Amino acid sequence: MSADPIDGFLAFAGMLADSAAHVTLQHFREGGAVTDKSSNAIFDPVTEADREAEAAMRRLIRDRYPDHGILGEEHGNEPGTSAYIWIIDPIDGTRSFIAGLPLWTTLIALNDGTRPILGVIDQPYLGERFTGSIKGKAELRTRDSARALRTRSAVTRLKDAVFSTTSTEFFESAAEKRVLERLVTGARLVRFGCDCYGYGLLAAGFIDVVVEAGLQTWDVQPLLPIVEAAGGAVATWEGGPAQQGGRIVAAANAALLAEVLALIKSTISAPR
Amino acid sequence: MSADPIDGFLAFAGMLADSAAHVTLQHFREGGAVTDKSSNAIFDPVTEADREAEAAMRRLIRDRYPDHGILGEEHGNEPGTSAYIWIIDPIDGTRSFIAGLPLWTTLIALNDGTRPILGVIDQPYLGERFTGSIKGKAELRTRDSARALRTRSAVTRLKDAVFSTTSTEFFESAAEKRVLERLVTGARLVRFGCDCYGYGLLAAGFIDVVVEAGLQTWDVQPLLPIVEAAGGAVATWEGGPAQQGGRIVAAANAALLAEVLALIKSTISAPR
Repeated sequence: MSADPIDGFLAFAGMLADSAAHVTLQHFREGGAVTDKSSNAIFDPVTEADREAEAAMRRLIRDRYPDHGILGEEHGNEPGTSAYIWIIDPIDGTRSFIAGLPLWTTLIALNDGTRPILGVIDQPYLGERFTGSIKGKAELRTRDSARALRTRSAVTRLKDAVFSTTSTEFFESAAEKRVLERLVTGARLVRFGCDCYGYGLLAAGFIDVVVEAGLQTWDVQPLLPIVEAAGGAVATWEGGPAQQGGRIVAAANAALLAEVLALIKSTISAPR
Repeated sequence: MSADPIDGFLAFAGMLADSAAHVTLQHFREGGAVTDKSSNAIFDPVTEADREAEAAMRRLIRDRYPDHGILGEEHGNEPGTSAYIWIIDPIDGTRSFIAGLPLWTTLIALNDGTRPILGVIDQPYLGERFTGSIKGKAELRTRDSARALRTRSAVTRLKDAVFSTTSTEFFESAAEKRVLERLVTGARLVRFGCDCYGYGLLAAGFIDVVVEAGLQTWDVQPLLPIVEAAGGAVATWEGGPAQQGGRIVAAANAALLAEVLALIKSTISAPR
């Protein structure tokens, strides 16, 4: 594949992010309270913004690339006739969105049938857009600047690393809880609550390792081309490919990834 | 006290926040990595920005109100000859600052010798400034808007509430860990990682209850006039006055505060 199609796809991905932002920003912090549809059901923070933003992106994709497939959180799988599949999540971090926190993101990836070839993590309230592709370039654009993204290559030990995860809730089993405890006590600095925005900060060299559980394929595929082009490494807790989601480690470099994978392995296999 | 002095003090507090922002924004995300001064010592994320921003605020206060006292995290207590004391924390959430997250805040309160009479929570990267005073008015100013702050009065039960706390690390004892566990499992929605920005979102009606431990007086005094003017209620875990910091609950209304205090009491006193 030549360089040109990816640049064109990246520009189009930016248009998708813009179209989602147009919807999400109208709803973010609207009113100040979200109606709980059913207080007896498990709380499901899917908002109107989520559905509308995904529908807007789907319309653009169908118009521009009618042969491409689409996979999204809200409206499911829409197969195409070519190998390309757009993977979109209009609002990752719906809980942050509901709580008024500007750390939710719009996630976009383009998969060529074998792997994600580009990714976008967009936070329109902050005006921040992280992008990356298999061309090996990742960048962060803000309202008034653009900078190349680079992970911290020198931070190869957990004890020197900034560790982030979203919430204790996603570590469900006793073994998973032990993993979280060892990461919290072993890292130099801990930050909770980032959702997929944390992978942008990892690519930017501020966070060094993100460990999560329960990720979906549409959460993971957009961040892979960004983190990897910035010098980072991503794998499942078992060290396998991360594309399909599940339990994921993203690290600033391969050495740090290896240390964290070893910690996870020894923690999970330890007898209690 | 008439209304006029508080308005004047509030305008001056805004100038203080501006002077801090001038310093902090120069350092936020500067370089992309913070040098660890001593990797063997306990990590202390006090940055140059913290010290410089506090020094800038102290200069302004000494100039304008030479008889007022100053209490700050970085440069200690500077007694005045009047009852007034400015209580300032240039960067609350230094860990967020280091990790590149735009949720750190500059905190400012003016205490009249008996209580904080005004407070500011400022996040200059977002361009958001939460203010409140004992005049009963609280507001959020952004770059292009201003809105009155109001907590959610209808959310009086934890099961319906958005709960927030900064990190599991601040719940140190076994009893404190049990309190956190009950709050996480009992709330409708959980968000970690907000530091004092979370109290601004509580005043704005997005978060309903914040429970923390280990707060300092300079963390608490700035948020009290904001949360209370917006309709919220703040107390220690034991139900006492919150001014001096420690273990704190802030809630959207008195009923929710009472439920959470009861939960804490029953959890801490429960035999294990």
